[in-house]
This record gives sequence, C-alpha cells and structure tokens, in this order.
Amino acid sequence: MSLLVFGSVAFDDVRTPSGSRERVLGGSATYFAWSSATLVATDLVAIVGRDFPDGFLRELRDRGIGLSGLVRAAAQDTFYWKGSYGEDLNVARTDAVHLNVLATWKPQVPAELRAAPFVFLANDSPQNQLHALDQIARPRLVLCDTRDLWIQQDRPGLQEVLRRTDGVALNDAEARQLTGERNLLRAARRLHELGSRIAIIKKGEHGAFLSAEGRGYALPAYPIEDVVDPTGAGDSFAGGFMGHLALVGSTSWFQLKQAMLAGTITASFCVEDFSLGRMKMLTRDAFDARYDEFRAYLSP
Amino acid sequence: MSLLVFGSVAFDDVRTPSGSRERVLGGSATYFAWSSATLVATDLVAIVGRDFPDGFLRELRDRGIGLSGLVRAAAQDTFYWKGSYGEDLNVARTDAVHLNVLATWKPQVPAELRAAPFVFLANDSPQNQLHALDQIARPRLVLCDTRDLWIQQDRPGLQEVLRRTDGVALNDAEARQLTGERNLLRAARRLHELGSRIAIIKKGEHGAFLSAEGRGYALPAYPIEDVVDPTGAGDSFAGGFMGHLALVGSTSWFQLKQAMLAGTITASFCVEDFSLGRMKMLTRDAFDARYDEFRAYLSP
Repeated sequence: MSLLVFGSVAFDDVRTPSGSRERVLGGSATYFAWSSATLVATDLVAIVGRDFPDGFLRELRDRGIGLSGLVRAAAQDTFYWKGSYGEDLNVARTDAVHLNVLATWKPQVPAELRAAPFVFLANDSPQNQLHALDQIARPRLVLCDTRDLWIQQDRPGLQEVLRRTDGVALNDAEARQLTGERNLLRAARRLHELGSRIAIIKKGEHGAFLSAEGRGYALPAYPIEDVVDPTGAGDSFAGGFMGHLALVGSTSWFQLKQAMLAGTITASFCVEDFSLGRMKMLTRDAFDARYDEFRAYLSP
Repeated sequence: MSLLVFGSVAFDDVRTPSGSRERVLGGSATYFAWSSATLVATDLVAIVGRDFPDGFLRELRDRGIGLSGLVRAAAQDTFYWKGSYGEDLNVARTDAVHLNVLATWKPQVPAELRAAPFVFLANDSPQNQLHALDQIARPRLVLCDTRDLWIQQDRPGLQEVLRRTDGVALNDAEARQLTGERNLLRAARRLHELGSRIAIIKKGEHGAFLSAEGRGYALPAYPIEDVVDPTGAGDSFAGGFMGHLALVGSTSWFQLKQAMLAGTITASFCVEDFSLGRMKMLTRDAFDARYDEFRAYLSP
C-alpha cells in the first residue's frame, strides 16, 4: 500500500566530530521518504524554493519518490538548517534556522494523494500538520512527529494533532518535555492519555521503545562503530517503520514490532554518512541483509 | 558450581527522588552476592567493622551466602558510602566516603574457597583485587569490575587485573573513561586489547552490551516504571550474570547471552526499593517468572 509523508525539505549545513558539509539535501520529509522508499512507493508533500537544484529533484524522483505534492516557490528560498554535534551525538545543536518558504506555506495535498492509506506527518508546525491532515480522507494509519519548538510554542495545536492521529514517534528528550515524565514507560502512558494509541520513543544510540495495545517492546540500536552524522536518523527510523507497515499492509502487534526493526535498520544506514550519502546507495538487498543480521543479533 | 565474590560490604546513606535511607546494608559484594544467591551458592570474601550488626550477618547467612571469608575487624568501623541521585538516575553522586576497615585490609581467601570455579572481583582497589586473585587456584572464569577512582589512581594496577582476568563488567561512563572511546563498540574492542576476553558494558535504564568471541549482543533494560534507588544495580547485574553461568556451569556464547538476561532481571528487582528491600523478598520463582516475561518482551 502506498505511503504519504508531509514535512520539510531543506538545505543543511552540518558539523559533527567526523567533519562538516554545506548545503546538503536534508529535511524531515526527505530523510523519511528516502528511507521508506527502500520498501514501498512513497509520495512527498512539501515545498522547496527557487534555489532548489533540479539535480536534487531528479535524485528524489530516481529514488521512486512521488513528487506530485512537491511545490517549488518562485520567489523564496528553500528552508535552511544549520546544526552541529559534539562528542555526544545524541544531542543536536541548532546554530541557525531560516524558515524561508516554510514561513508562509499552507500545504496542499493533490487530489490523487488524498486516499493515501498510510500517512506520516513529519516535523512541521501543528497548524500545518492539521491543515495537511484535513485534506486526507480516512487514512488507515497516521503517525506524527514534532519537536521542542512546537511543544513550547503551540502545545494546544500539538495536542489536537495527537488526538487526531493514531500515534506519535518522538525522541526521548521530546517525549520527556511533552509529558513531564522522565521515566519512558510513564511518558508513553501519558502519550496514550493524550490520544496516541501508538507511542514510539526513539533513543538514538540506545535504541527505541514502542508502546501500544497495553504492551511494550524495546530494542537496542543496530551497532554502528563509526557514526558520521546523526542528522535525520529519527526521520529515517520513522520512514523504515511506516515503510514496513505500508509494505505488509498491516498494523498488527507483530508487524509493529517488525516495523521497529525496519526503522532501526534504515536509521543505521542514515548515520553512516553525511546527508543522504549512504542512503543514496542503499538497495533493498542491502536493507534485507542487515535486517536479517540484526534479527540474529537480537536473538538471546 | 559455586561462586565466589570478593568486594566491599558497606553502610550506605542514600538519597534519591523517591526518598532517603540511612545506614542501610550496601556494598558491591553485598549486592552481587544477594543477587547471585538467588541462583547458586555464593561465598563472600569481604570485611566489616566492629559496628556491623549481627542481624545483618544473619540476613546474609539466611540468604545462603557463605560467610567463611567474611572478616570482622575488632577496632575499626564498616566501610561507609553516602550518595545521592537527581532526576537522572543513571548518575550517582558520591557525597562522602569513609574507608574505615578498607583502608588497611589485605583480603584473605580461606583455604576451602580457593578452588572456586567462578569468581567475581567486585569493585575494590586493583591491588586488593590482585591480592585476592593470587590466592585462587586456576578458576574457570574470573570477571572483574572497577570504578572511576581506580581508573584515575591506579591504571597500571587495573591493567594488570584486566590482563589476569577473563572479562570485565563496567558501566558505560567507566568504559569510556578507561578506554578513551565514546562509541561502545570501540570501547569494547579496546577492552579486548587490554586483555578482557569478555567485555560487558552496563548502561542502566538503556540496557547492557556484551562483546566476546568476536560477537556482540545488546539488550534493553527490563522496563521498570518506578525506579526507587539505582544503588547496587550494576553489582546486582553482575551477580545475576555470574550466578547464571555458575548455575549452568558453562561459558558458551549462548549461555553468556542468557546470563545477560539473568543480570538484567536481578538488577530490575534491585532498583525497585532502597538497599536490599526488594531483593530480600526475591524468590527463585519470582526471578523465573520475570525472566520468562522478559524473554517474551524481547521477542520481535
């Protein structure tokens, strides 16, 4: 079944202990779609600016990512994020943000995409997430993400997003900030109370935790010795997670757990290079091989 | 097969967000032995002071912990530790330490314990760990622990301990401090280079990692909603780990992984109350039930 992602496409400047890159392809929806497209057809609803190179569009299209929902603004530049990481790669520092096209955008979902059964609302303002969601007719599963900024600035909007979606995928710091609970089991329970039937808490190098249907599942990260750039790992996790569910057309407890493995695997490739460097070469065969290897690794 | 632990027995004053306790039973060897004794006969080599209550000795004996190696000093007090935790229960702050009996002690292993097949050198000075090890004849498996103090103050001694033992169980901060590697896969490889065939890195609420025989295994922590006091969790993990291996009399890769589960389970009981509050009521049946539950929880 097909998958739709709504979110940002960006130019990133990134610095990590492994080096730095300027004006590379980034954005929450980009990392998500690049990962999910390893498994299933994925449509992108997002906006880029006049400065967005045709070469980047070609790369997205060649990856099999549907671009009918991608708008290019005529008079503004692409969203820009500049960030850096110290030795603790779990903590990203935002050094600069230029909203550019995102400042005034109201997302439009093309008619042919409004019946998408699987939908992910990647990080954007709650109002834009709701605006996108309003245009989608009875999806089978909608998950959302958010970030510290929206938890601070539009908690009512975010809470409406949580009520109107099936689940949420947050990192641990965001889950704690949103719920006020340090213990992640309590944080997950609070997310359920806020309306998220499915709560996923991503912990970077420490793995991820799923809570749904009164049950829990935790797994460690795939072991990576050289994490080059963690940017996009959370979105890449969500892409693998939703990609797996859309691929198998199920949201059973068993498949939710398999989706946690799939998300772990796409995220593990994501962090092995800057931007989409490693993802660009990621084949389904390479995904399958690491997925199998990880299943063996997890086996007690 | 029987198990011997060498380490400290202490009075602890502890403060956590859940409350505080004064002069409760603590110490690395205490937590270890109380955990391992759930599974297998365990002998304790340690020292206490003139102020150590007979009631505590009785509790240890009633647990099935062999006390022939426990010395009581006539003129000094028991080792004392005062510590506290903030909201991040992974980080213990030491507020006071009185070495008392530990200041001058040289451990003596009674003749009848010198053939112990499974041995754990819990946290103490490397010189005392070596002194204890010198008295043990060809053990089948020796693991050791240490802490930040000894990494700073006696690195040569610690390195000799690592060379002369089969493996090491450290928390993540100690592993990073000892090896200079932030990435835990690299840290484990460095521990192998230093002579530890088996490297266990404990990550508190984030689980634990095992590296041995060119293979790795990671697992999350058992999910606990109300962590009351994390003191002793690492020693309790080591006790469950070594207890399992001594119980089954094997150090195969499969059993090393099962031992990681056993250590996770004993540690999970340990943190549910102050001191040995929960451990004192821990039966083998309760251990088995949670072990089974955890295996199901881990299953993808």
